[in-house]
Amino acid sequence: MSIGAATNGTTGLPVPSHNAHAAATATTSPYQHIADFISNVGKFKIIESTLREGEQFANAFFDTETKIKIATALSEFGVDYIELTSPCASPASRADCEAICKLGLKAKILTHTRCTLEDAKIACDCGVDGVDVVIGTSSFLREHSHGKDMAAITKQALEVVNYIKSRGVEVRFSRASDLVDLLSLYRAVDNAGVHRVGIADTVGCASPRQVYDLVRTLRGVVKCDIECHFHDDTSCAVANAYSALEAGATHIDTSVLGIGERNGIAPLGAFLARMIVAAPEYVKRKYDLHRLKDIENIVAEAVHINVPFNNPVTGFCAFTHKAGIHSKAILNSPSTYEIINPEDFGMSRYVHFAHRLTGWNSIKSRVEQLGLHMTDAQVKLLTTKIKAMADVRPLAIDDADSIIRAFHLDLQEKDTTETWVN
Amino acid sequence: MSIGAATNGTTGLPVPSHNAHAAATATTSPYQHIADFISNVGKFKIIESTLREGEQFANAFFDTETKIKIATALSEFGVDYIELTSPCASPASRADCEAICKLGLKAKILTHTRCTLEDAKIACDCGVDGVDVVIGTSSFLREHSHGKDMAAITKQALEVVNYIKSRGVEVRFSRASDLVDLLSLYRAVDNAGVHRVGIADTVGCASPRQVYDLVRTLRGVVKCDIECHFHDDTSCAVANAYSALEAGATHIDTSVLGIGERNGIAPLGAFLARMIVAAPEYVKRKYDLHRLKDIENIVAEAVHINVPFNNPVTGFCAFTHKAGIHSKAILNSPSTYEIINPEDFGMSRYVHFAHRLTGWNSIKSRVEQLGLHMTDAQVKLLTTKIKAMADVRPLAIDDADSIIRAFHLDLQEKDTTETWVN
Repeated sequence: MSIGAATNGTTGLPVPSHNAHAAATATTSPYQHIADFISNVGKFKIIESTLREGEQFANAFFDTETKIKIATALSEFGVDYIELTSPCASPASRADCEAICKLGLKAKILTHTRCTLEDAKIACDCGVDGVDVVIGTSSFLREHSHGKDMAAITKQALEVVNYIKSRGVEVRFSRASDLVDLLSLYRAVDNAGVHRVGIADTVGCASPRQVYDLVRTLRGVVKCDIECHFHDDTSCAVANAYSALEAGATHIDTSVLGIGERNGIAPLGAFLARMIVAAPEYVKRKYDLHRLKDIENIVAEAVHINVPFNNPVTGFCAFTHKAGIHSKAILNSPSTYEIINPEDFGMSRYVHFAHRLTGWNSIKSRVEQLGLHMTDAQVKLLTTKIKAMADVRPLAIDDADSIIRAFHLDLQEKDTTETWVN
Repeated sequence: MSIGAATNGTTGLPVPSHNAHAAATATTSPYQHIADFISNVGKFKIIESTLREGEQFANAFFDTETKIKIATALSEFGVDYIELTSPCASPASRADCEAICKLGLKAKILTHTRCTLEDAKIACDCGVDGVDVVIGTSSFLREHSHGKDMAAITKQALEVVNYIKSRGVEVRFSRASDLVDLLSLYRAVDNAGVHRVGIADTVGCASPRQVYDLVRTLRGVVKCDIECHFHDDTSCAVANAYSALEAGATHIDTSVLGIGERNGIAPLGAFLARMIVAAPEYVKRKYDLHRLKDIENIVAEAVHINVPFNNPVTGFCAFTHKAGIHSKAILNSPSTYEIINPEDFGMSRYVHFAHRLTGWNSIKSRVEQLGLHMTDAQVKLLTTKIKAMADVRPLAIDDADSIIRAFHLDLQEKDTTETWVN
């Protein structure tokens, strides 16, 4: 079910999310409910490609132990499929593929191969649950003129699809081509009983509306599932995945932290941040979200990168609030400025109060956290002092706490003095 | 002009971009041309908010010198507007605002204040070119019932808009509300001659189609410019900005590396990566793209963060290619797997060849770079050796180069021996 499918009981206005956590923003959101009847926003599947696309990341070298650790973690997290590098890529790739198939994980194991009978046979022999075949862009274009090209590709596609099906294994077919050839080819493999066809944006240039239009059109042509694979060169991978689901796609490719060729594909965590807003119950029931941070750390360590400061959900600042006006609202009602509940991912909120943009509500909250008592007027005076200090240099929390405690002590002493004098 | 507005001369099919660099992908892309008559994809303006939204980033503390350095760099880069923290936030904020206004930068200087006459007066007194006013979500909701609410807000908005206009200063008005109130309020300030109205997604929950629909509706209601501000909590900020421009928005808020509240807003670099694909001539003419990396480094250093590994354009892997099949295509024709030309940003491409997924074309290219000569058959044999080594442990470039040179030496010795024997 799409974002905003629920309505506010009082006003009848759409609320921006199914997430009760976010319902409070209902009356202040101008964004309207969108829910196509073909939408799979509430019933998508994840094809996790850290061990295929992610292995193409500049820094990636996964030894067998690391691959098993990552595959096991992803399966426990709840991803539907785990995609592995082609067993034809190298002897170790083949041995690792066989080893992972033997683990008996809950997630189905896929591998990604060229669309040839030789590769398909090796893949099936490894014991995978499914094979994702792809015919490369360039080979046929060079060897055949257009026309002959399509007949030869269709023949080869059907041969390979039929072979993999005869082995009792799932098969996805994918090829980059223009719209007309793509629809023609995909209809042919759909009629042959392919399980999924794949849409990719290999260069990362597609926009959400283009994706929506393409998938919407394809949805009317094939009965099978539709898998989508979006690169992030122009920062649209997650938005494109979402648009594809709205248009009827069923499976989305992700990798942990998005690692892959160039700057990668839709990241698992960012994609789930998007999806939990749209389909909170489905996402929370299906995926063990508290494990996300651990999985990201395993992969980040394996490929020698830092989790980006601004990573959705797990970046160090994802739930940090600073501006005075925001902090005030956050303290009153978190959903006013938070569409995701950090607790769903085992994370916590942090309201940064020790800076020159701070508001007195933030300071009041900190005073209460420290177990001190002041009137609102006193907190406002204290806030002016903290802002003045923070205007000169950055304040650590300890600094701010010291100022608060000193101010409080002053108040008590003055109070005592006054009591004594009076 | 929107992505894909040009057509391929031979086939009449749309090509995925205006960028000549990317034209080679034309025949293999199924994504169709989209260009609304209201689209501003080819004539947008940037409101750079690193010194306002960015100051709300957890780690941000900009002293006067840093603010001036950032503002100067952004102006030289070519951004249309630079937005500063409200001069009412603290005494230093006011002094810095005055100082930056006096620099005489090419970019127009804006500040962002509450929608009150007091704040507006202080802002105008600082010498800004424009004031972005906003009425907070919560204040009126608490003090007024709905209805009275709207009358009071409209009255206050018009007072402040008229005051700022009377000072000869640009004014933008923004308020979070549901669609009906928003349209009503924005029509009123539009009739009063406001320069821009603002659409925000403060919690980062909006999807591209929701944004398109909202901006498209608003575009039919107001004559003035439309500014959009998107948070990135669910990784849709750049895609939302793009959708907004397609629907007729005119101004997009960015910050360097996206820094801001929580995980921030649309990043300047990522946004321009998206836009150069859609409107390459406009972007290259207007912005000094070679300065992007320096500006990001200035800001990253000032707020103590690392540039994310996967940052579009400037992340260390943005133009790194690894998979055999991709590398081959990249070597033949970069645009097959690159939608952005790294040279436009003063960056360079790197084809990673020393790994087990490598292909013989990558190795052949490296052999040529090293000034060595081999037959294709020899390169293929060498490739098998490199893949076998890379299957055991990660290979540095130096390692691979050593293997290549040793192999080449072997060939020469064998050649000499054979010559001598024959």
